[in-house]
Amino acid sequence: MDERLKKQLDFSLEIDKTKNVFRQTSLSGSGRKENDAEHSWHMAVMAYLLREYSNERVDIAKVMIMCLIHDIVEIDAGDTYAYDSENIKTQKLREEKAKERIFSILPDDIKSEFISIFDEFEEYETAESKFAHAMDNLQPLILNNSNGGSDWREHNVTAEQVYSRQNKTKLGSQKLFEVVDEIIRKNIEKKSIKE
Amino acid sequence: MDERLKKQLDFSLEIDKTKNVFRQTSLSGSGRKENDAEHSWHMAVMAYLLREYSNERVDIAKVMIMCLIHDIVEIDAGDTYAYDSENIKTQKLREEKAKERIFSILPDDIKSEFISIFDEFEEYETAESKFAHAMDNLQPLILNNSNGGSDWREHNVTAEQVYSRQNKTKLGSQKLFEVVDEIIRKNIEKKSIKE
Repeated sequence: MDERLKKQLDFSLEIDKTKNVFRQTSLSGSGRKENDAEHSWHMAVMAYLLREYSNERVDIAKVMIMCLIHDIVEIDAGDTYAYDSENIKTQKLREEKAKERIFSILPDDIKSEFISIFDEFEEYETAESKFAHAMDNLQPLILNNSNGGSDWREHNVTAEQVYSRQNKTKLGSQKLFEVVDEIIRKNIEKKSIKE
Repeated sequence: MDERLKKQLDFSLEIDKTKNVFRQTSLSGSGRKENDAEHSWHMAVMAYLLREYSNERVDIAKVMIMCLIHDIVEIDAGDTYAYDSENIKTQKLREEKAKERIFSILPDDIKSEFISIFDEFEEYETAESKFAHAMDNLQPLILNNSNGGSDWREHNVTAEQVYSRQNKTKLGSQKLFEVVDEIIRKNIEKKSIKE
């Protein structure tokens, strides 16, 4: 087998570990938390399904691969819960180190390509990044809402915290933000989210 | 919320169940079996990463969404192991029923689109379908190989069975079939696959 293909297959095997990185979101109707591979799969399907609601026209292949690989760095860096203010302080550093190790398994040209896709997601500037982030926000929200907001209650999350994250959903999709807003209001009313 | 968007979000929640459909393939180095969402995520990343090896030029967005949704019908139909000759007899019927129920949650135009993508995958005729199938074959093979072929040993799988499935990998990628062939030969030698 040539060296290039060997590196691509080594990377393919390495990312299997994404399935062992568990998040704070529970699957709908099950007690189990979901992992990064499941979350990324769900985001990518939703991105394709809901692409008509993106504020700007997007390259959907780019959005999908962005959704699919955005959490691979958590193999080393671990999952950082959206409302864990302590761990968020070190998140960037942990993820930069992880990015370098994991994407270095790839041939140089693909390493550059994947890092560029990952960085584009993180920078939150392009249409594709904004829409992928909207999915990253919407996907756990619909699971959590289907479970009566139990993830928010477990972590004593406040409306201010939820809005500070979800307000950015607007940047990707005004239309989907309206749904998000409706869901948040209902959960504040039900006291699943603290006022 | 308008009716169209409501249907899209109902579908988004329904497919969460894909994460509870377990396959016969074990994750690398872990005792746990993988589920359909994890498998589909892995296939889609590999499709993007290895697209240069497709025999024919492919629309990579099409290949990715095909990978991502090809197993959703198993929410109702259950996973059918590639070498379970008894269950394979009823697979088509079970999956057709499931397809109708699950995709009917969607607005009509998207239902048609998703069914057409699913059918295209099943028919094994287009470049995108052949390459997506190559991923469906290669992804569990590299996991199983990394585990010393334990999935094959567990099910007493023969070389004839493995080749009858994997020979079709050639249709999607001659180059990747060479790797597959090398892995199969090594596992026959090690007696993980019966001659």
